[in-house]
Amino acid sequence: MKIIIVGASGTMGTYLSNAFEKEHEVVRTDRSNPDLPLDITSPESIENMYKKVGAFDALISTAGPTYVGPWKNLNDAAFRKGVEGKMMGQINLVLIGQHYINPKGSFTLITGALTHDPQKNFANAAAANAAVEGFVRAAAIELERGIRINAVSPSVIENSPQYFPFFPGEMPVTMKQLEYGFRKSVLGANTGQVIKLH
Amino acid sequence: MKIIIVGASGTMGTYLSNAFEKEHEVVRTDRSNPDLPLDITSPESIENMYKKVGAFDALISTAGPTYVGPWKNLNDAAFRKGVEGKMMGQINLVLIGQHYINPKGSFTLITGALTHDPQKNFANAAAANAAVEGFVRAAAIELERGIRINAVSPSVIENSPQYFPFFPGEMPVTMKQLEYGFRKSVLGANTGQVIKLH
Ligand SMILES: NC(=O)c1ccc[n+]([C@@H]2O[C@H](COP(=O)([O-])OP(=O)(O)OC[C@H]3O[C@@H](n4cnc5c(N)ncnc54)[C@H](OP(=O)(O)O)[C@@H]3O)[C@@H](O)[C@H]2O)c1
Ligand SMILES: NC(=O)c1ccc[n+]([C@@H]2O[C@H](COP(=O)([O-])OP(=O)(O)OC[C@H]3O[C@@H](n4cnc5c(N)ncnc54)[C@H](OP(=O)(O)O)[C@@H]3O)[C@@H](O)[C@H]2O)c1
Repeated sequence: MKIIIVGASGTMGTYLSNAFEKEHEVVRTDRSNPDLPLDITSPESIENMYKKVGAFDALISTAGPTYVGPWKNLNDAAFRKGVEGKMMGQINLVLIGQHYINPKGSFTLITGALTHDPQKNFANAAAANAAVEGFVRAAAIELERGIRINAVSPSVIENSPQYFPFFPGEMPVTMKQLEYGFRKSVLGANTGQVIKLH
Repeated sequence: MKIIIVGASGTMGTYLSNAFEKEHEVVRTDRSNPDLPLDITSPESIENMYKKVGAFDALISTAGPTYVGPWKNLNDAAFRKGVEGKMMGQINLVLIGQHYINPKGSFTLITGALTHDPQKNFANAAAANAAVEGFVRAAAIELERGIRINAVSPSVIENSPQYFPFFPGEMPVTMKQLEYGFRKSVLGANTGQVIKLH
């Protein structure tokens, strides 16, 4: 299977790229990738990335920038980080990518436990996650040619200890659990699902 | 109680304004209101509206424009209708309005069953609804001075027969049920809730 991994240089992306590479052809992309640069906040950049890659079987997105910080600084401008990044960035990966992906291919987007379990400082991510999950359920009944779409929703992950203090009482999700969440979406037959790892 | 109703000229807004007016001071606003015009897609317009109204006890929003139409025409540009309208428009009503509302005041936003029950043609509304619901849960743990926030989520309503064909098998929500959903949020003590009328 030819699998595009968006955000491949990140904490999740590095682990997942190495894991899926053992059995699949993995195409890595992110803003700083010298061979295949991609900025998901730009539909033109997304279109260019797909044109370069050509036909593929699955896309995994682990790129989802959001505003993280005090509520008192959360205004329209700050909110745009998650709107343009985690929300519209990932939605545009699907709206544009549906024209490039092989029949029966799949899109797997990243959300997170904040959709239903809010934490202080993360209202922007909560809204962006929820938007992506609502979109996933709706897109699943619209996509044609057997194309599937799911989201993976972890709580804080074990390789991100810098976030532990912001998630009191959240048992960290192991990288293996994260990998299996994505495996379920990419290799299974489900669509329109939010695969909760918490 | 002094209650601002946003989208007061619409199907829901007209009914709710008349209903709440029996016991409360209702301030009506929408884009075409000659005395108190408001375009929720503009933070400046929102700020001006609040300055004119002064202190208030509750805001009810029934304004939530979205793109409704064939999936094949749903691109980044079309998606912006719901992002700027139903999503950021309502979120900005709260981010800005928190500085004008009285202590223990409440915000009640409109979402809809599409968050979890998708229908063809409505992916933009599904994402915008979900974003608003994620925001409501997150804002509830951040807002200060006892300020509350909830969303009301109806399925198709009985006064909108033009939408019935798009919602096969959905029992229309009565206007009385809709009113009681908003009553529960405005007059009750709940916060961070999605009041499901379906
Ligand atoms: N870490 C956690 O505990 C956790 C838990 C639940 C959910 N999440 C969510 O999971 C996602 C990934 O988390 P992570 O910890 O792996 O993040 P990360 O380490 O910061 O990695 C993010 C990746 O996305 C890329 N990226 C950022 N902005 C981009 C853009 N505009 N276009 C294309 N690529 C972009 C980054 O590379 P470049 O900067 O080079 O582009 C990097 O490869 C985030 O959305 C986060 O909210 C994380
Ligand atoms: N009708 C249903 O069956 C149903 C069911 C579930 C959910 N919903 C949701 O409920 C909301 C209201 O539905 P409705 O049927 O009452 O809609 P509607 O009849 O079209 O009324 C919309 C109201 O919002 C105002 N409005 C529109 N854009 C605005 C803007 N940018 N700034 C300020 N005001 C604006 C309109 O007045 P102006 O044009 O003059 O501004 C009008 O007063 C929508 O978000 C809809 O998705 C509806």
